Amino acid sequence: MKRTLGICYYPEHWPEAMWADDARRMAESGLTWVRIGEFAWSRIEPEPGLYDWGWLDRAVETLGDAGLKVILGTPTSTPPRWMLDKWPDMLPVGADGQIRKFGSRRHYCFSHPGFREDCATIVRLLGARYGRSPHVKGWQIDNEYGNHSTVLSFSPAALAGFRLWLERKYGNIKALNEAWGNVFWSMEYNRFDQIELPNQTVAEANPSHWMDFRRYSSDQVGAFTQVQTNILRASGPAPLIHNFMTKSTDFDHFEVAKNLDIASWDSYPLGYLEKHSTLGDAWIQTYVRQGDPDFQAFHHDLYRAVGRGRHWIMEQQPGPVNWAAYNPAPLPGMVRLWTWEAYAHGAEAVCYFRWRQAPFAQEQMHAGLMRPDNIPAPALAEVQAVAAELKAMPTAETGAAPVALVFDYPSVWAWQTQPQGKGFEYFGLVFDFYRALRKLGLSIDIVPSDCASLGQYRVVAVPGLLSLAPALQQALEVFDGTVIAGPRSGSKTPDMQIPTGLPPRLPGFDCTVEYVESLRPGLTQPLSGGGAFRLWSEKLSSRMPVRETHANGDPAIVGDEKHWYVGGWPDEAALHRILQQACAKEGLPTVELSGGLRIRDTATHRFFFNYGPEAQVIDGLEVGVAEVKWAPRGAA
Amino acid sequence: MKRTLGICYYPEHWPEAMWADDARRMAESGLTWVRIGEFAWSRIEPEPGLYDWGWLDRAVETLGDAGLKVILGTPTSTPPRWMLDKWPDMLPVGADGQIRKFGSRRHYCFSHPGFREDCATIVRLLGARYGRSPHVKGWQIDNEYGNHSTVLSFSPAALAGFRLWLERKYGNIKALNEAWGNVFWSMEYNRFDQIELPNQTVAEANPSHWMDFRRYSSDQVGAFTQVQTNILRASGPAPLIHNFMTKSTDFDHFEVAKNLDIASWDSYPLGYLEKHSTLGDAWIQTYVRQGDPDFQAFHHDLYRAVGRGRHWIMEQQPGPVNWAAYNPAPLPGMVRLWTWEAYAHGAEAVCYFRWRQAPFAQEQMHAGLMRPDNIPAPALAEVQAVAAELKAMPTAETGAAPVALVFDYPSVWAWQTQPQGKGFEYFGLVFDFYRALRKLGLSIDIVPSDCASLGQYRVVAVPGLLSLAPALQQALEVFDGTVIAGPRSGSKTPDMQIPTGLPPRLPGFDCTVEYVESLRPGLTQPLSGGGAFRLWSEKLSSRMPVRETHANGDPAIVGDEKHWYVGGWPDEAALHRILQQACAKEGLPTVELSGGLRIRDTATHRFFFNYGPEAQVIDGLEVGVAEVKWAPRGAA
Amino acid sequence: MKRTLGICYYPEHWPEAMWADDARRMAESGLTWVRIGEFAWSRIEPEPGLYDWGWLDRAVETLGDAGLKVILGTPTSTPPRWMLDKWPDMLPVGADGQIRKFGSRRHYCFSHPGFREDCATIVRLLGARYGRSPHVKGWQIDNEYGNHSTVLSFSPAALAGFRLWLERKYGNIKALNEAWGNVFWSMEYNRFDQIELPNQTVAEANPSHWMDFRRYSSDQVGAFTQVQTNILRASGPAPLIHNFMTKSTDFDHFEVAKNLDIASWDSYPLGYLEKHSTLGDAWIQTYVRQGDPDFQAFHHDLYRAVGRGRHWIMEQQPGPVNWAAYNPAPLPGMVRLWTWEAYAHGAEAVCYFRWRQAPFAQEQMHAGLMRPDNIPAPALAEVQAVAAELKAMPTAETGAAPVALVFDYPSVWAWQTQPQGKGFEYFGLVFDFYRALRKLGLSIDIVPSDCASLGQYRVVAVPGLLSLAPALQQALEVFDGTVIAGPRSGSKTPDMQIPTGLPPRLPGFDCTVEYVESLRPGLTQPLSGGGAFRLWSEKLSSRMPVRETHANGDPAIVGDEKHWYVGGWPDEAALHRILQQACAKEGLPTVELSGGLRIRDTATHRFFFNYGPEAQVIDGLEVGVAEVKWAPRGAA
Repeated sequence: MKRTLGICYYPEHWPEAMWADDARRMAESGLTWVRIGEFAWSRIEPEPGLYDWGWLDRAVETLGDAGLKVILGTPTSTPPRWMLDKWPDMLPVGADGQIRKFGSRRHYCFSHPGFREDCATIVRLLGARYGRSPHVKGWQIDNEYGNHSTVLSFSPAALAGFRLWLERKYGNIKALNEAWGNVFWSMEYNRFDQIELPNQTVAEANPSHWMDFRRYSSDQVGAFTQVQTNILRASGPAPLIHNFMTKSTDFDHFEVAKNLDIASWDSYPLGYLEKHSTLGDAWIQTYVRQGDPDFQAFHHDLYRAVGRGRHWIMEQQPGPVNWAAYNPAPLPGMVRLWTWEAYAHGAEAVCYFRWRQAPFAQEQMHAGLMRPDNIPAPALAEVQAVAAELKAMPTAETGAAPVALVFDYPSVWAWQTQPQGKGFEYFGLVFDFYRALRKLGLSIDIVPSDCASLGQYRVVAVPGLLSLAPALQQALEVFDGTVIAGPRSGSKTPDMQIPTGLPPRLPGFDCTVEYVESLRPGLTQPLSGGGAFRLWSEKLSSRMPVRETHANGDPAIVGDEKHWYVGGWPDEAALHRILQQACAKEGLPTVELSGGLRIRDTATHRFFFNYGPEAQVIDGLEVGVAEVKWAPRGAA
Repeated sequence: MKRTLGICYYPEHWPEAMWADDARRMAESGLTWVRIGEFAWSRIEPEPGLYDWGWLDRAVETLGDAGLKVILGTPTSTPPRWMLDKWPDMLPVGADGQIRKFGSRRHYCFSHPGFREDCATIVRLLGARYGRSPHVKGWQIDNEYGNHSTVLSFSPAALAGFRLWLERKYGNIKALNEAWGNVFWSMEYNRFDQIELPNQTVAEANPSHWMDFRRYSSDQVGAFTQVQTNILRASGPAPLIHNFMTKSTDFDHFEVAKNLDIASWDSYPLGYLEKHSTLGDAWIQTYVRQGDPDFQAFHHDLYRAVGRGRHWIMEQQPGPVNWAAYNPAPLPGMVRLWTWEAYAHGAEAVCYFRWRQAPFAQEQMHAGLMRPDNIPAPALAEVQAVAAELKAMPTAETGAAPVALVFDYPSVWAWQTQPQGKGFEYFGLVFDFYRALRKLGLSIDIVPSDCASLGQYRVVAVPGLLSLAPALQQALEVFDGTVIAGPRSGSKTPDMQIPTGLPPRLPGFDCTVEYVESLRPGLTQPLSGGGAFRLWSEKLSSRMPVRETHANGDPAIVGDEKHWYVGGWPDEAALHRILQQACAKEGLPTVELSGGLRIRDTATHRFFFNYGPEAQVIDGLEVGVAEVKWAPRGAA
Repeated sequence: MKRTLGICYYPEHWPEAMWADDARRMAESGLTWVRIGEFAWSRIEPEPGLYDWGWLDRAVETLGDAGLKVILGTPTSTPPRWMLDKWPDMLPVGADGQIRKFGSRRHYCFSHPGFREDCATIVRLLGARYGRSPHVKGWQIDNEYGNHSTVLSFSPAALAGFRLWLERKYGNIKALNEAWGNVFWSMEYNRFDQIELPNQTVAEANPSHWMDFRRYSSDQVGAFTQVQTNILRASGPAPLIHNFMTKSTDFDHFEVAKNLDIASWDSYPLGYLEKHSTLGDAWIQTYVRQGDPDFQAFHHDLYRAVGRGRHWIMEQQPGPVNWAAYNPAPLPGMVRLWTWEAYAHGAEAVCYFRWRQAPFAQEQMHAGLMRPDNIPAPALAEVQAVAAELKAMPTAETGAAPVALVFDYPSVWAWQTQPQGKGFEYFGLVFDFYRALRKLGLSIDIVPSDCASLGQYRVVAVPGLLSLAPALQQALEVFDGTVIAGPRSGSKTPDMQIPTGLPPRLPGFDCTVEYVESLRPGLTQPLSGGGAFRLWSEKLSSRMPVRETHANGDPAIVGDEKHWYVGGWPDEAALHRILQQACAKEGLPTVELSGGLRIRDTATHRFFFNYGPEAQVIDGLEVGVAEVKWAPRGAA
């Protein structure tokens, strides 16, 4: 696998006279890829049916002539204003029932059939024109699905689509009433056209209603994607890519990516830390110019799985951004560190966003590799340093991970629909497992919930999984390593009902969750082995041995040799111990990492990343603040 | 008065084959009552005008055959979806102007005349069919009025009704303009049909406008109820009941209950603590598995008054619920404690919600007495223990309380409309008085603001009462015990104006509130007798003696021998002292209770309830954590 | 300049029989002015086209006969309800798309042409009737523009007006697309009628779009005003006044006031402290009964500038108000202190709101000089004391201030649109500079951003100014004192783009802001001179000398002898030092004031105001709590 660098570029933002010089400097800086076009619909088709290809032809050619390979974006995330004259009802509608207006981006509803047709037309024209271009070496489909909370739309188009989807799924209304349990509260329907979207109900809507709407909405992203991928696949050999986002869970990425060749994602470590960290002010303060030490790695491992082994960074933060609550600059060295971390986790390409900071519009305060006055910004030197280093290490094989962690999008929706306790968030639960494994120095594979083969792993963790797909069920049945499950794993049917016989419905787990409790902050349940459950605790009975107990003697963790069930949300200490014990039992060596130091193994090297505020020494190497080092794996 | 147990049951949720066994186990567990049917409209009338009585006939018979007495609920809180085809405008509308959609429950506007007619029809049919049934021994009208904030609806139906109501009240528009003071800000109306609902005004609407809309909305609950009670009263002898809620104040319960025979309420101590407690994290933490030690008692005493001496618990929490922010399990013993506390306060029946936990829909995580897999949940054993104990103490006479506390719904609305200081909440003020009285070991009667007779009391507290009804005015004039009033008592006319001559307008209180201050947290006003006012302080002048002063010498509490006026919101220490002094003066013995220990006297026994985290000894009895004990009253 | 007192009065609220006595007591209390009529439209025109002038004629005459001078308010802020029968679409619409209904005040959209016509009609009639009245000595136009967030209306009328305004500004749609940078995200428009208002877009709207809508909305306030001022100017000699508000920034007050003769404002120090203070609970607690020690002074200096030298207090708080979260009473003495502070800052008149507390409607809990029962409230004695003192000091000349501080309304809008860091608020930044200057004992002039002459000043501070108007640019070019600029000064073009060549675009400042960072609370940047930047920090390069550095040696404050650029938001210590050094360099004497003591010089006297909780001694004078003292300027 070859490691490459790239850049996002907007020729339409700059005088044509600058293009050649920009292209030359990109190439000289060691960049291979240049992504263009994904927001340029109003320049390609300034009026309905009136196309201007000249500027785009010249841009592709200028970039290609400089030796760059073009990723061409389909411009469907920003339809021009004139399209609303034709489809005024294509705008998305919020859960509050308000139309979300034109004037920024992503102003479309995935369900709108007319808009889908217009997308097919523009993509067909793009494919025909550039599908065999010697310079266009990849396609990006749309841009950042789900950004600005646009997967769920409560529009008339979504309602119409949802009713059809339900009719197709259930066949008759009686089946739907039973699957949802609509006898409860007299919610039974007589006809499919009586069903509304689940927003703005008097009390909360039926969780099964929500889950079907979540599945429907996710499916629309897939169907929308397939319209484009079918066309582009036929237009030429270039791989199909989408740039996914961080902590983006409103659609099933595994499903949507099935029609793609590469999963890429947009990595903004500082913006993420500010926006999503749940660990409080002191933690954010410690990592404010570096980002969370595990968050990028998690997404690399996730999108490597989504891309079935192939993943990129399509947008890498190069300096302060404009959109978080607070937008500091990264520490010197972090742009290089983030880039190498991506490679260590198997990324084939790292592209920066963007070449030159735009002086206008919404993102004028978003840094680029060049300042608005066309002078290099601080990050460019770090990119050039990576380019130089790549000459010594141009390729890598992803290492074999000994541990697998299941991640599942419907489980996100299920616990958002029915948290049962404020703060019970599936993403956070899985991420806690991920961080604990990684602090043990382990390399991890994230696998989907329909993963059919677990043979290469020694430990598989399945926290909080809504219900098991048949493939994973079968894989677990034959798996001979240790499976760690719970809390809440296998606790529902896919219809979002409690399964007959009570949870957990997991092969090989001979225990019962009698009832569950959600715990307010401050109310923790100490474990006999140390640490505690917080937020969530289950009353267990078990035919398997009790491994750890609560203060009152009730079982807290139960399990036989190969199946451990964790009946609560373990805090950091408890999770560390549980996972360390499982690894020890399976003969997996672990390391005790402290502070912000992290490790990742490729097939040939061990990489060390220091996110923390102090230099650390490991394996005889001193790793400075914001520094990345590596050593051949034999050396350790 | 006989003490009984009961259960809420949903035969429509379960295969008919299970009914007989369920009924048998209910009866064997000591349950007498079974409430059914209140959400079953879609099964009774699956299509408009098409009725299916068979299943309900069989359910009533099966339960009755097992020896159970049926409370049959009118299903009007969950009209079927098909009714919206007929009355699309029957849905309630929020204060934000948004329609509140079908898909859960309570999806109706009390003002809608068409829906009221359809309710009359279904109730008429139910009454005709079951009004003389040997098994149906009570009717529940609708379910939990006011849940999900459904009393106030800002719908077209409510607007039309409100205009008529105003016209009926005021006769001519000039009278309305004067009563509201509409000359202020040129708000004068020319015609009744110009008046809008008071939501979404540019600045806050006229408080008189709000108060009339609050009164109108409360009246609609009463009128809606009367449609049903008139029909059912004529259909047979069974008593008419509604299940009211905790801290439910959007309509006047005293008024609505005038057409009922029994006031019942739904008691969820843990959910309440999490949802409503204003005492902060440490308090909640202390009582997280027990509930607030005074809150259930307050509602027992309130609903005993609402029911004119007859009250039930229609739904008693048996384990973790699904709807609070956090949902822990009760301590072992609490289900029994809550049950006996209800009896000690005069409840005739305690029914648990629900027999078996449903595995589907919105409440699938709400515990029952049986688990979804039909195995007993922990609470069942406590219920059976109560059933056994009842054999020794099957009846009780409510004791005579020496203290009365006035509670008034329009006062809630008044201070919500015009708090004048964030956090000035009438319910909280009255509840502070209640808790302080109860911590003195007193049994308390709550009385309405039109209470005509106070002869049996020695101390009457009237905090924060908007204005006096003539009956209470006359009762106070002849009352020879001590009246404690203020802050804010008698401070408005019923029109929500400042009375001529300034507050308080209370018979026998010769003092004046010159102006008032609201105080931010941290700004307290120490009292010469100890403790302080917080949140609210009044500048008093008085022809009555000054009892306590502020630091600057201004009068804080004034009063003659029989009339004490408290010119602020007393903190716990101050309130304890004031009330203790009043009781001492009136010769009422008090007890100093600490922690979570509480007392309640019936005519024959003194009960001891320990809500606190440690065992306590009182009157020679050790009362353990989550324990209830009792002793004959002669013994103390 | 003569110093006078006045009162706000509502004859329509009281029986006519009370008027003469009210007027007599006003005059006897030393009041000169009486403002009436501004909310009386429904009494002047009770039905469309039907006028009742009699009561107003008699009210004016009764007041005038008592020797009072009448300020007559145009009643346009409270159009009667019947007008909505004619113009149902004149109501304002919130950013949430919801119509803001009738039922309070300010229920109109500034853009509505029909409403503007009706305003012209009523004002024309008022002018014709009272323009030459011997008693009407001033006009108040409308009332409190902007109160209740009514400047920005998202109504159809505003949309129609905005499109025309844009067409007039840009001429063709291409020019608009370029000015806004609409090529970004394909936001380009083909026609002006495609442009929507910038609310409810999917992601944030283009900042240039917002800025134009902010400018448009501000212009409508000006145009609305001009309709009235043109009429009244022609009707007689009385000066034209508007009563502006505290921290009111949604329209450009300098622009709107160009058609007025006097700028007045409504001063509610306690309500403001509670509503707007950003300094936390301890600060608010310290000043809870006095108000912020610098806030009133800031607004005096601001409105003196807005009024081009002439300013009044139209409404002065006399006791507890009704509208803040908490409403305490002022300390005894504060009403007098606030009044003298206004005079010391050049106010010609101080009018109190209101004569007698109304017992009805929205403001029934708002204190007046008289209680509702017509007995004097505490403030009246303080007003009478001021009246007596005025006999000794009836006139004053405003002193010459040595320091100027630029304040600019579009800069407020710019940083609200694009804060780039939570809490970056222009008003707060300028106010921090103001407070620091004032704590140095300085008298300050606030000047607009088109100020053409700075000759009289030694120090000019220009923090956070969006961009320079040509007049100020020229004035700065010839200014020979010290200019202190930054952070963020001159950082945008008026179109809201980053200027070519990067910020700051300020004459004489030879430095560059390479990029900026926003800093979360707790993340501060210490300065070599002490103190720190917080919230905002800029990466500077400079051809001017470096005055102070960051911990890493980067320049933080740069400047030559006369131009200092501050590359961040200085905390209190840093700002104090920077400004003290500038004053010292320019030979301006400063004083170190502590606690709540403040100074203001007129031409002849130095005034001392003690807002703090303890008495202080300064210049040999002891100034008690809530006390104001003064001394002839020669004496110091």
